[in-house]
Amino acid sequence: MQFEHTNLPQRVRFASGEAATALAEEVTALGASRVMVIASAAERELAGRIAAGLPVTHWHHDVAMHVPLPVAERARAAASAHEADALVCVGGGSTTGLAKAVALTTGLPILAVPTTYAGSEATNVWGLTQNDHKTTGVDDRVLPRAIVYDPSLMITLPVDLSVASGLNALAHCVDSMWGPRADPVDRALAAEAIRALRIGLPQVVTDPTGLTGREHTLYGAYLAAVAFASAGSGLHHKICHVLGGMFDLPHAQTHAVVLPHVLAFNAPAAPEAEQRIAEAFGSDTALGGLTRLRAEVNAPAALRDHGMPEEGIPAAVEAVRGAVPAGNPRPVTTDRLTALLRAAWEGAEPR
Amino acid sequence: MQFEHTNLPQRVRFASGEAATALAEEVTALGASRVMVIASAAERELAGRIAAGLPVTHWHHDVAMHVPLPVAERARAAASAHEADALVCVGGGSTTGLAKAVALTTGLPILAVPTTYAGSEATNVWGLTQNDHKTTGVDDRVLPRAIVYDPSLMITLPVDLSVASGLNALAHCVDSMWGPRADPVDRALAAEAIRALRIGLPQVVTDPTGLTGREHTLYGAYLAAVAFASAGSGLHHKICHVLGGMFDLPHAQTHAVVLPHVLAFNAPAAPEAEQRIAEAFGSDTALGGLTRLRAEVNAPAALRDHGMPEEGIPAAVEAVRGAVPAGNPRPVTTDRLTALLRAAWEGAEPR
Repeated sequence: MQFEHTNLPQRVRFASGEAATALAEEVTALGASRVMVIASAAERELAGRIAAGLPVTHWHHDVAMHVPLPVAERARAAASAHEADALVCVGGGSTTGLAKAVALTTGLPILAVPTTYAGSEATNVWGLTQNDHKTTGVDDRVLPRAIVYDPSLMITLPVDLSVASGLNALAHCVDSMWGPRADPVDRALAAEAIRALRIGLPQVVTDPTGLTGREHTLYGAYLAAVAFASAGSGLHHKICHVLGGMFDLPHAQTHAVVLPHVLAFNAPAAPEAEQRIAEAFGSDTALGGLTRLRAEVNAPAALRDHGMPEEGIPAAVEAVRGAVPAGNPRPVTTDRLTALLRAAWEGAEPR
Repeated sequence: MQFEHTNLPQRVRFASGEAATALAEEVTALGASRVMVIASAAERELAGRIAAGLPVTHWHHDVAMHVPLPVAERARAAASAHEADALVCVGGGSTTGLAKAVALTTGLPILAVPTTYAGSEATNVWGLTQNDHKTTGVDDRVLPRAIVYDPSLMITLPVDLSVASGLNALAHCVDSMWGPRADPVDRALAAEAIRALRIGLPQVVTDPTGLTGREHTLYGAYLAAVAFASAGSGLHHKICHVLGGMFDLPHAQTHAVVLPHVLAFNAPAAPEAEQRIAEAFGSDTALGGLTRLRAEVNAPAALRDHGMPEEGIPAAVEAVRGAVPAGNPRPVTTDRLTALLRAAWEGAEPR
């Protein structure tokens, strides 16, 4: 047993229906008096309600996917022009990402109120896009000081988006078992997250407006992100990154389709991961547990249904082979990877 | 599901035989150039070896149990006189506690190298003793910046002390399930710690010089402390605190004896704790798992064997009743508590 693990400082408030109260308390705790609220146009009203009691100096609704650099620069300029002393972001990964881009250059503290299961709020990772090229980095300044999780805010998130976002969180868990910096603490947190997601996600499907499923899914997504930020991207995320970039595939669906194939590939060579994942699913095998959950939530099964061309497989194989993370449990050969991607493309049984 | 959870910032290095190297790297990362090393006289040689490569400005061996105020003041004066810019503590709870006492008033960063399973290195809790009265408090300044865990340092810790210290860590786990601030993250970490301790402790007994048992026990003790610091003292620790103070009982033995009685008392009213503890032990019931482990490590069973007088029970009951933590799963009446303490005193079956 040999590892290094870093615990990042962050407060987590978790309470349904209490986002406004909890957020006001956290703003007071920061001593902030000029808050810049970041929320996409679609979430303008929601943000207005949650932040109504705060000393807001600027409402910022200029948000875009993948945080394009010009969008980031406009937000930074706004923070400066309005002399903001704290950032509040209400939204999904892109909104949190924009707040992080501002914090990166200004050092302003972030309070995050997530409305999806993306998990970005629990990490010190930032990302910026320029000319279609995404740059990412790690900086403790972008880690939100506090997260206000209010599961009641997710009730309006459509079921298909909820499932895709939840399966994306599940992918964080699985890859945390063998990521390049994976340690026992990461594996324990990821296992706890799987337990929560396997309880929560099926309930979100059967009872989308019920709180219990939303609570478990959000709690699981939080721990999944903590584990993943510590462990780093494993094989699954490298594959999805390549596929997404090459064929412009939808993010969450790609994760949902690829995950069982990577699990089937790696697990036989990673007995501790296999055991932990299986236990967390309450299943005999890791793959059995994932397969059952995927069936319960009617998860997408084939990349060809989401826009990947069959003739793209060899180029994808080539690109992934150059990005295989250090310490992947099983050597990744061209043949094996081709079989894996073909199975994911056609929706075959993972093995 | 409603909770608040705070993650404290701390680096953990875990590597057998590499204490000196890891410690040197952490000193460099801090940018420290005048290190004060704190270690008891008994661990002077060990500390000398581990810290040999550091820029040491002062070796401090004036350490005493429970951190008496005069001992703390001498250490603070020494840090000041030698213009220390960092503290390195090598030792058990008392040594770490002394470093914390210095950090509390000086703000100096601590790097901790534990040699027992006490867990103090993973918390922001400090304690000082004056005129037989112990004051404790919480302050983030006393949280060590980094912990260097080297399980090979524990190989010389005698088996009986190892077992007592390990069962003390186990008590942290159990009380973390229902402490006044217990949250789902605490419970997950405590469950992981129980898994590690139930693997490690029996191996320490059967193979005290083997590394595997030491590794699992130390890893479990670390997570137990993290969970406990977040959850706060539950009924078990309140009882042990009262008994220790009233009858001057040995700390770790008291914990080892009392724990199964508190578990038997609370678990029927705490179904989630019952299930998590049982699962972590790989047992049908929480108490069954604890009983099996206690048998494997030949744990102490009766308080009367450790100096508690039978006629002390009523006064202890009275004192504990005034200290029952908020939210204990089961109401604590005089009759129930008397039965519990009598059973612990005579070594009866917990129920």
